[in-house]
Amino acid sequence: MPEPGEAWQPPPELQQVADLDFDRERRRGYAEAVYCASKTAEQVRRIAAAVADRSARTLFTRATPEHADAVRSALPDAAHDAESGLLWWPPAMPEPTGGLVVVAAAGTSDLPVAREAELAARFLGRPTELVVDVGVAGLHRILRRLDLLRSASAVVVVAGMDGALPSVVAGLVSAPVVAVPTSVGYGAAFEGLAALLTMLNACAPGVAVVNIDNGYGAGHLAAQIAAPRS
Amino acid sequence: MPEPGEAWQPPPELQQVADLDFDRERRRGYAEAVYCASKTAEQVRRIAAAVADRSARTLFTRATPEHADAVRSALPDAAHDAESGLLWWPPAMPEPTGGLVVVAAAGTSDLPVAREAELAARFLGRPTELVVDVGVAGLHRILRRLDLLRSASAVVVVAGMDGALPSVVAGLVSAPVVAVPTSVGYGAAFEGLAALLTMLNACAPGVAVVNIDNGYGAGHLAAQIAAPRS
Amino acid sequence: MPEPGEAWQPPPELQQVADLDFDRERRRGYAEAVYCASKTAEQVRRIAAAVADRSARTLFTRATPEHADAVRSALPDAAHDAESGLLWWPPAMPEPTGGLVVVAAAGTSDLPVAREAELAARFLGRPTELVVDVGVAGLHRILRRLDLLRSASAVVVVAGMDGALPSVVAGLVSAPVVAVPTSVGYGAAFEGLAALLTMLNACAPGVAVVNIDNGYGAGHLAAQIAAPRS
Amino acid sequence: MPEPGEAWQPPPELQQVADLDFDRERRRGYAEAVYCASKTAEQVRRIAAAVADRSARTLFTRATPEHADAVRSALPDAAHDAESGLLWWPPAMPEPTGGLVVVAAAGTSDLPVAREAELAARFLGRPTELVVDVGVAGLHRILRRLDLLRSASAVVVVAGMDGALPSVVAGLVSAPVVAVPTSVGYGAAFEGLAALLTMLNACAPGVAVVNIDNGYGAGHLAAQIAAPRS
Amino acid sequence: MPEPGEAWQPPPELQQVADLDFDRERRRGYAEAVYCASKTAEQVRRIAAAVADRSARTLFTRATPEHADAVRSALPDAAHDAESGLLWWPPAMPEPTGGLVVVAAAGTSDLPVAREAELAARFLGRPTELVVDVGVAGLHRILRRLDLLRSASAVVVVAGMDGALPSVVAGLVSAPVVAVPTSVGYGAAFEGLAALLTMLNACAPGVAVVNIDNGYGAGHLAAQIAAPRS
Amino acid sequence: MPEPGEAWQPPPELQQVADLDFDRERRRGYAEAVYCASKTAEQVRRIAAAVADRSARTLFTRATPEHADAVRSALPDAAHDAESGLLWWPPAMPEPTGGLVVVAAAGTSDLPVAREAELAARFLGRPTELVVDVGVAGLHRILRRLDLLRSASAVVVVAGMDGALPSVVAGLVSAPVVAVPTSVGYGAAFEGLAALLTMLNACAPGVAVVNIDNGYGAGHLAAQIAAPRS
Amino acid sequence: MPEPGEAWQPPPELQQVADLDFDRERRRGYAEAVYCASKTAEQVRRIAAAVADRSARTLFTRATPEHADAVRSALPDAAHDAESGLLWWPPAMPEPTGGLVVVAAAGTSDLPVAREAELAARFLGRPTELVVDVGVAGLHRILRRLDLLRSASAVVVVAGMDGALPSVVAGLVSAPVVAVPTSVGYGAAFEGLAALLTMLNACAPGVAVVNIDNGYGAGHLAAQIAAPRS
Amino acid sequence: MPEPGEAWQPPPELQQVADLDFDRERRRGYAEAVYCASKTAEQVRRIAAAVADRSARTLFTRATPEHADAVRSALPDAAHDAESGLLWWPPAMPEPTGGLVVVAAAGTSDLPVAREAELAARFLGRPTELVVDVGVAGLHRILRRLDLLRSASAVVVVAGMDGALPSVVAGLVSAPVVAVPTSVGYGAAFEGLAALLTMLNACAPGVAVVNIDNGYGAGHLAAQIAAPRS
Repeated sequence: MPEPGEAWQPPPELQQVADLDFDRERRRGYAEAVYCASKTAEQVRRIAAAVADRSARTLFTRATPEHADAVRSALPDAAHDAESGLLWWPPAMPEPTGGLVVVAAAGTSDLPVAREAELAARFLGRPTELVVDVGVAGLHRILRRLDLLRSASAVVVVAGMDGALPSVVAGLVSAPVVAVPTSVGYGAAFEGLAALLTMLNACAPGVAVVNIDNGYGAGHLAAQIAAPRS
Repeated sequence: MPEPGEAWQPPPELQQVADLDFDRERRRGYAEAVYCASKTAEQVRRIAAAVADRSARTLFTRATPEHADAVRSALPDAAHDAESGLLWWPPAMPEPTGGLVVVAAAGTSDLPVAREAELAARFLGRPTELVVDVGVAGLHRILRRLDLLRSASAVVVVAGMDGALPSVVAGLVSAPVVAVPTSVGYGAAFEGLAALLTMLNACAPGVAVVNIDNGYGAGHLAAQIAAPRS
Repeated sequence: MPEPGEAWQPPPELQQVADLDFDRERRRGYAEAVYCASKTAEQVRRIAAAVADRSARTLFTRATPEHADAVRSALPDAAHDAESGLLWWPPAMPEPTGGLVVVAAAGTSDLPVAREAELAARFLGRPTELVVDVGVAGLHRILRRLDLLRSASAVVVVAGMDGALPSVVAGLVSAPVVAVPTSVGYGAAFEGLAALLTMLNACAPGVAVVNIDNGYGAGHLAAQIAAPRS
Repeated sequence: MPEPGEAWQPPPELQQVADLDFDRERRRGYAEAVYCASKTAEQVRRIAAAVADRSARTLFTRATPEHADAVRSALPDAAHDAESGLLWWPPAMPEPTGGLVVVAAAGTSDLPVAREAELAARFLGRPTELVVDVGVAGLHRILRRLDLLRSASAVVVVAGMDGALPSVVAGLVSAPVVAVPTSVGYGAAFEGLAALLTMLNACAPGVAVVNIDNGYGAGHLAAQIAAPRS
Repeated sequence: MPEPGEAWQPPPELQQVADLDFDRERRRGYAEAVYCASKTAEQVRRIAAAVADRSARTLFTRATPEHADAVRSALPDAAHDAESGLLWWPPAMPEPTGGLVVVAAAGTSDLPVAREAELAARFLGRPTELVVDVGVAGLHRILRRLDLLRSASAVVVVAGMDGALPSVVAGLVSAPVVAVPTSVGYGAAFEGLAALLTMLNACAPGVAVVNIDNGYGAGHLAAQIAAPRS
Repeated sequence: MPEPGEAWQPPPELQQVADLDFDRERRRGYAEAVYCASKTAEQVRRIAAAVADRSARTLFTRATPEHADAVRSALPDAAHDAESGLLWWPPAMPEPTGGLVVVAAAGTSDLPVAREAELAARFLGRPTELVVDVGVAGLHRILRRLDLLRSASAVVVVAGMDGALPSVVAGLVSAPVVAVPTSVGYGAAFEGLAALLTMLNACAPGVAVVNIDNGYGAGHLAAQIAAPRS
Repeated sequence: MPEPGEAWQPPPELQQVADLDFDRERRRGYAEAVYCASKTAEQVRRIAAAVADRSARTLFTRATPEHADAVRSALPDAAHDAESGLLWWPPAMPEPTGGLVVVAAAGTSDLPVAREAELAARFLGRPTELVVDVGVAGLHRILRRLDLLRSASAVVVVAGMDGALPSVVAGLVSAPVVAVPTSVGYGAAFEGLAALLTMLNACAPGVAVVNIDNGYGAGHLAAQIAAPRS
Repeated sequence: MPEPGEAWQPPPELQQVADLDFDRERRRGYAEAVYCASKTAEQVRRIAAAVADRSARTLFTRATPEHADAVRSALPDAAHDAESGLLWWPPAMPEPTGGLVVVAAAGTSDLPVAREAELAARFLGRPTELVVDVGVAGLHRILRRLDLLRSASAVVVVAGMDGALPSVVAGLVSAPVVAVPTSVGYGAAFEGLAALLTMLNACAPGVAVVNIDNGYGAGHLAAQIAAPRS
């Protein structure tokens, strides 16, 4: 079994809460992320303190304002994007390397998830662009952005409701498409289930899907796809 | 309560099986249709005999070869389209009146359902056109047929898998779009459920949906929409 | 690919938020609608300002009181119907043309959705009538309104719980029926899923279904069906 | 704990297969029924032999032709209704007592289940009537049978597809309505799920529902409801 | 079509809201009930005023405290049971006639629904008894109440979680069992779906099921089953 | 039928609420637990008073702070663990006997459920250990705890999201694994459904599953598995 | 990471097909099982040949007659139980050690799964007993076997349809209950889903659930629970 | 809108069946694939004839033996892999370029899908490796192949049942993981739904999911990810 991680020992107060995978950046090449949504503010504060202690590059996802306060009590200079609920430390984004990641959002309502994807890819080292309101009900809007889309090494497509956008985009570009269904919609949208199923059944090859509203996961994967080749 | 129908009395052997709604053409303006799928060949034969007895214009849907034989034992000159499983009597289609009904099928596999929709609309009196293999993975194919689509009074869009086509078409035309999800696909297509949900969540207004594989229902509705105005 | 829209350029502050489809009324013949539910009040305000800037006929749907305030800060004379959550500008409804749209609601609880359907059809130019509390548990109530229902060019039927009303209405009229399931009910109503499935399986032909609680979509489609023929 | 049943001991060959509840008729007042569908023909034969041995009134449900042969190898004079898959012994139906049970089937395709309900109620001692093809798409058909329906002590309503009939019937009669969804339909009928949900959400009170295609259960319950009062 | 109801005309302010079925008691023999849950307090107040105007026996179900205040502003002496959310007028229960209705609740948490069933049956004229905390995890508790259960003309069984109680009770009594699944439970109880499915698959015949948490419907049906025979 | 319980009679005020199974410890060997989640604080208080009256060892599960106050008004020295929502009386845990129960939690967010499992097993008499943050995304973390896991007589594995941990653990140990899916996650986690299905399909034998978030049930079962052999 | 297995190298023809876990018996203490259902007969034959080559104790599950022939072409003396689809080698069962495993089947139709559970536990070294036809609709049948059930160290309860039996059994015994839902039933049984949900929501603690029809998994777990303590 | 494709006109007999996207290789860089599963053999034959006519590199997926015969009647030298149901023309695979694609299958039963993924990636120009039987129940098997997995530019992970393998692999490598759920399993595997949900909820970032059994889609996406950088 692989490298057991380094010799750093978590402080006792953290050991009750989390066994952070600081080894991950070395092992996989991508920094650790802390999913805040189901943690208490106090748990997040302890984790941020351990991050500060280790000076480890870290992304905090799905942070409420209370989580954000907890992170900054330990990492006062952490950057914060309220729309997407992300914080990161150190606050400076890395110099971009590798191919371009384009994030396309079908509607205004999909923006928080799209922004999460874009910032995650940027935090992991890629150049990024964000395109908004390019839903399939007005095809001219997506066709107008075709040059940008075709210049990407990875395209993240974010859509709720009918989730039809990834099929259309994948038919127009040669880069891989990472599709993110969102919980935008009502009734038979079933909190994103409809868009998820649409995307899994995309009639154009070259589409893979992440969990509903999982902007972070899509951005992470796009960053891996567009990574500089060694 | 309305007109109880005319004085015709079904023969005893039929009374055990079905209480045909011969009054329907007079009451609603559209001829009766007999859904064969869950009936035995013998039941279908008795119904066809009653149709012959009454000389009533009738459409038989979802007929297997056995059903077709049963219909023709009573109505030897009934027309038959094996691909869609339809039979109709009398065999001559009516003179077309009203607006054009265009049926667009996303893929080859959607043809049987599309054909059922087209023939049903034609049987109920409309002029029709059928367009095939215009899925959203190759947008140029649908855009090439835009003039035809825009000349329709009602458009029926038939699609399986991601079911994305109705959203795209509805964004391009001003006529109502009747969307038919098909059970084409596998895995997370869930026998047409994915396409059904996509269509119910179409991000373009002007789309309504019928049951999975329900070509007949779509053609009937399109015929009503495109009916000549009195 | 078609007409890329006119030369109007959205102001920069809007470009981050939405790429409005002002071309839609020209392209499809029906004015743009702005779905407020998943937008912030600030986003809605920016969109309303763009609408004012362009003097474009626009409908705002699913507006909360906060959304309504945002719309009226930019369009002070916009009309507002609080029950259905609709606002529209300009406030005067157009002169009605085309056939009659009748909206029938099964129960009192279905009224907000029914009202949304009626106002949408009216905003898009049709004469409309609203009929309430005609559920199938008391058939005499629907039969009493048969003359009105039979005078319609399109009937919108709004029902929750068992969703049985469209089947009954479609058996009595010759116009197309647009069925709207509502989330009224509890338990095995599953937030409108039961009514949705009922309507998709309507045993009378001539019924198509829109998303749960989608009064706007139903009204839009009914307006298209009953549109004056060129 | 109650009466442990009488002293009869099952023969060894049966003990490996089934522990028949011959005590049931004494304890609950209704004879035992043997559900054949998931049993082998040999298992059914052994059970029929035990029935013959005990001279116990018994109903066999969901019997295939193979099951029927197995039953009759042990009970040569058992009665058999192939349409519903029922056999019973002794073959003579009991003298009817109690109130009338009316079974109403929405369509021809619902007949096997409706017949199962009717025969089960008859086997358990009630007078019965069967009414067919009274779906809600042609209301005049059900209204024509109103007198019969209103004379019942219990009404069994059998319907597939939209399952709307029980709501309509329950609004017209004062007797309890036992609703049986059938698996008739396709696509979004989901093998009877749509009709099941419709019936559970019946907007008229006085409806209870049994399992999909469970004609036997409905007939049994109707027989209990219409039982003579002691 | 049947009796169109009497000549009473609803006041204009009500006509916008509801078309009350005051004819129902005459037509079906059971008084009208008003489902408050999805109505506004103002709508309920208007309905209560119409009830007062007509002096019609009426039950109000699923009333919140605001609904209760609205009812009593028009019907000051209406009776109110807060646990079940019921109000009724006139406040005096009718003299009980017909057979006994026993309501059995599996657990304490099922009490509000059980109480709703009991009071509904009592309001509709039956004698009733309520038995609590007789879940199948402690069989001795249900066996201790066997005499009472066996004296009933109809048994209502209310249970959440595994919903196993109706199968056990139906195996012990000869009266019909009306099963009410409740939304009590968590996780894979799926808001009552698990109990609903259990009950639909009850291995003992003689069970029918109403909607999740539908105490009123169960009590109504039990009252019909146990009604005095004419 | 078995022992009807002892002669103790519940006080009248309790009899309306609950029929406590004080006989359970004697009959099954494990003390009674009171599920607070769907009970009112007043109902819980009455039950705690009965517990005090009987001096019966009792566990209270899923207690909110209000429930906790209610318990302690009757049992002032009851122990309370706020994270898991458990209270127990008497407050001293029993002397541990039998095999070791190890509870392993995949992530920090699974801690409340894991703690509930651990304390339940401890309350029922077993020695316990808790291991946290050993998700499969960092295998070295679980492999580091292999010795502890292999020393257990029963392992409880608590995981949300993909629920993959039980498969991995069961492949590494010989003790039975009790898997607890949690509702941790979002989108296609469907409130724990995804983890539940994963665990039911565990590719390693030796895994059984309890309800979502059911830490108590898992701890109870583990205590039974690891019980000292008589 | 642990022991990499011994030095045995699979023959090349097998390496394309399967990487057998012959290390499992040493690592976990329980012999390997080969799931035949989704393998071709040829694949099973190759695996059986490898088993013969290694003289490894092995169980083959879900074997069709074709699979059985394939196994016996390589292991001519393998034992075969056609009802459960199991084969095992060597054919002699081990000397039983540890506590008794009792398998209880609700109905005749559950026998194949129950037998699979019993034989699996027996193959893994436990003494076993099988009890049939003890469904909750006739409680006296299960109560009659109470002594046997209470003598078990682990009870496997197998039930389809309503799946209510585990709740009742767990309320009567102190041993752990492993519940196996079966796909027996129809309609709303949804291929075992109903029973699965019932069992996950068992109101008696001490129940854990395995996959639908997973007799092997239940028998394996019961064998682990009842294993002799070192 | 983009390039309308070249001037080639499909022969009339094909135009009724399919509008082949021969432009796709030029537009997207990847050759056309023809999904045979829902087409008739005659439709496939016509398409293969058009392929021959155009000398276009083409992959045929999900071909039954009948489909294979149809393809080879028009393209006699087409290559055929019966296990995965693939045919391709021209039969020679292209010279591999770009990064390595590793396909890992959890079990023997996942082989057909894994092989489809591998061959698709190979057909589209990548070097590939296939690893079998590395399920998480025996971790040493996957760990043994770590070097190979870490040398890949894209990893396709194919798994049914619990679908846990992608989470484990993604935690060990830095390349993107394309997860393919398979329909292998039974009961609560729900034809691959369980594995699909597991993979969508993978607790390790860097995983995206394609449709159930969609080996072709996964291979295509992996080929895009590992494509040589221009």
